[in-house]
Amino acid sequence: MREHAKPLPSYLVGRYRGWHATSYTENRAWYRRLAEEGQRPRSMIIACCDSRVHVTSMFGADQGEFFIHRNIANLVPQFTPDGDHHGTSAAVEYAVKNLRVAHMIVLGHSSCGGVEGCHAMCSGQAPELEEKTSFTGAWLNLLRPGYERVTERNPADPVTELEREAVKVSLENLMTFPFVREALDDDRMTLHGLRHDISEGLLEQYDSATDRFETI
Amino acid sequence: MREHAKPLPSYLVGRYRGWHATSYTENRAWYRRLAEEGQRPRSMIIACCDSRVHVTSMFGADQGEFFIHRNIANLVPQFTPDGDHHGTSAAVEYAVKNLRVAHMIVLGHSSCGGVEGCHAMCSGQAPELEEKTSFTGAWLNLLRPGYERVTERNPADPVTELEREAVKVSLENLMTFPFVREALDDDRMTLHGLRHDISEGLLEQYDSATDRFETI
Amino acid sequence: MREHAKPLPSYLVGRYRGWHATSYTENRAWYRRLAEEGQRPRSMIIACCDSRVHVTSMFGADQGEFFIHRNIANLVPQFTPDGDHHGTSAAVEYAVKNLRVAHMIVLGHSSCGGVEGCHAMCSGQAPELEEKTSFTGAWLNLLRPGYERVTERNPADPVTELEREAVKVSLENLMTFPFVREALDDDRMTLHGLRHDISEGLLEQYDSATDRFETI
Amino acid sequence: MREHAKPLPSYLVGRYRGWHATSYTENRAWYRRLAEEGQRPRSMIIACCDSRVHVTSMFGADQGEFFIHRNIANLVPQFTPDGDHHGTSAAVEYAVKNLRVAHMIVLGHSSCGGVEGCHAMCSGQAPELEEKTSFTGAWLNLLRPGYERVTERNPADPVTELEREAVKVSLENLMTFPFVREALDDDRMTLHGLRHDISEGLLEQYDSATDRFETI
Repeated sequence: MREHAKPLPSYLVGRYRGWHATSYTENRAWYRRLAEEGQRPRSMIIACCDSRVHVTSMFGADQGEFFIHRNIANLVPQFTPDGDHHGTSAAVEYAVKNLRVAHMIVLGHSSCGGVEGCHAMCSGQAPELEEKTSFTGAWLNLLRPGYERVTERNPADPVTELEREAVKVSLENLMTFPFVREALDDDRMTLHGLRHDISEGLLEQYDSATDRFETI
Repeated sequence: MREHAKPLPSYLVGRYRGWHATSYTENRAWYRRLAEEGQRPRSMIIACCDSRVHVTSMFGADQGEFFIHRNIANLVPQFTPDGDHHGTSAAVEYAVKNLRVAHMIVLGHSSCGGVEGCHAMCSGQAPELEEKTSFTGAWLNLLRPGYERVTERNPADPVTELEREAVKVSLENLMTFPFVREALDDDRMTLHGLRHDISEGLLEQYDSATDRFETI
Repeated sequence: MREHAKPLPSYLVGRYRGWHATSYTENRAWYRRLAEEGQRPRSMIIACCDSRVHVTSMFGADQGEFFIHRNIANLVPQFTPDGDHHGTSAAVEYAVKNLRVAHMIVLGHSSCGGVEGCHAMCSGQAPELEEKTSFTGAWLNLLRPGYERVTERNPADPVTELEREAVKVSLENLMTFPFVREALDDDRMTLHGLRHDISEGLLEQYDSATDRFETI
Repeated sequence: MREHAKPLPSYLVGRYRGWHATSYTENRAWYRRLAEEGQRPRSMIIACCDSRVHVTSMFGADQGEFFIHRNIANLVPQFTPDGDHHGTSAAVEYAVKNLRVAHMIVLGHSSCGGVEGCHAMCSGQAPELEEKTSFTGAWLNLLRPGYERVTERNPADPVTELEREAVKVSLENLMTFPFVREALDDDRMTLHGLRHDISEGLLEQYDSATDRFETI
């Protein structure tokens, strides 16, 4: 490995230096307190890795405000305490048990490559994802129950519906974690499901009473 | 699940609406192109979930620029094609094979609760993390090889050293992925290891020639 | 001073711009009338500076509705026309004589750091507050008569009782202002004493007939 | 006093009940944590009591984010440790020493009745404010140095200029507090001066390099 790590591209070095001379310097006192006293985020956000989703901009985030986990298609697996390493489950556990966040927000988005991949895979259009060696395929399998619900409903736009299912499946799976359920039952935390439309910049919210997504 | 999802706190709704009326509206054309044509990020960043780490601010991120995976302590597991769902491996695979990013950046940081937890666990101070049911403990086990190297060196500040090891272990594990090694060998991608000091706003970079971190 | 003023943190600039593009723009006509014709608030609220007390949210405030003075522990001093500058007395005078508000509301709250400080000081646990140079101590001295009444009653929870006394002492001191008494006697204004419980979101109201606070 | 406290107007009771059933209930977990763990505001804002200035809306405030002191014309007196009760000095002291806020923001505004009163008084048009018994007059005297600077400059719009002076005089007086100066010298805090135009919703920022206010 050692021969491989390379210097950061200079345009990123330049931007970092600019950030340090401005934003950091102007807010040094707060950064120092955050470092000394630790973080106390109010919310955890589970979002997609997609480069077009800027969680912190959209919600005017202050430093220290959101604990953010990002993975492909903002998926949460079911509770599986088998001793294996589960990055998403660990992040959820840490947020609920250690940070005791007040809100757990699952944020999906439009034109999600992961969701499109899942749809292609489940409809037999992406054999490469079905190979045992495909990490992406194995990961997107978490969304297969959503795919099955979508095909039952047979909507006009199945991929958009599957993006919504990616949020719902994650909310459902979150409920299989005993400490999540407990935090909800004790009113220590609330769950939220959102889907962001990149093209129009819209945000729709899952309403569990109607089982529908409504634009905010 | 259905009875549990709640409306977004109104201060976040207000901030989102403000973002839509300003940042989104001012950049609508670009967002629409990003939605139509898909993302084409230049880099993947693997960072921690910590609320104090604002990757996009520090690097002046443009929408569509960084494919960002965030997990506890910015860890990457070894290549393990066992058909199980591995969120981090899936994100790395997707970034390298589908998005063909030019840079793979691992970004660690100071006062990392995950790294502190790993140090406590490995030194026998955190039995709760050693329980088979602890997702956080199982995840932080990925960093155990780093802990062993740190204890061998027995440095003045072992936790800070372990934060650096969290970056190095991830870089090493990335090299166990055939498609990562291939991309590096073909000069299609470069690897980068960084550690961010929250308090001072500093950024140090791993230099594989000297096997040391140097402040930028 | 001149070398010291700094630019506003960018997350606040962003939120402000968002507010201007939405809330302001949607209500421009009303803001312009408020600017042209001046304010005509129905009530004055005297509340604590505490960041957890959102007066305007709790009472669904319209712009122009509440004239709000906030100081530590929502205290009002006695009428002391000595020509010195008294910010609270000036605010009360302006509200009653110039704005002729119809309601004067004193709003206390739970876990008030000021009230806790007063309790510590009066019980000899906070010598630093008793120093002549402590502005906080001198200010909290206004609440000493309340502390004495509480110690006489010797209740189970003296600090909560002192939070209630902070409201009562302020109401009593308001009565020492001739123009306040006159406005009350002429039925031009009514007085109200409230205590807000942050944890449970409750609001209790002072009933002068029973000399007790009753939850609304 | 006892015969005077009255029940809260029912429209406010109604709004409070609505707030409790919605905003409070949806955010109960966070309110409980704020109550348990105390506040940790990032900034102190010194604003006017004026009913048209909604600090929390304009900055999309989360509960627990801003420690807010409001008095007539957002004035800060000079450091005067004479043992008398000084509400503004106490609030500043508490914010800097106890809460250790990272930012101290003075927020002025247009069509400020206090500033207009000061201008009238200083130009001999408001004898009632010059009477020794006028709390408002005595308080607005804090702004007299600003009035003198404005008359020297003799600008087209002296009252607007005096609104800006109300911010600058407060920033200058803040610098007379040893603990404020110390916090600034130690980079533990930054100062910010703003003036809000109610009619147009604009926000202008004091730039100490140029000694001017620039619209954000």
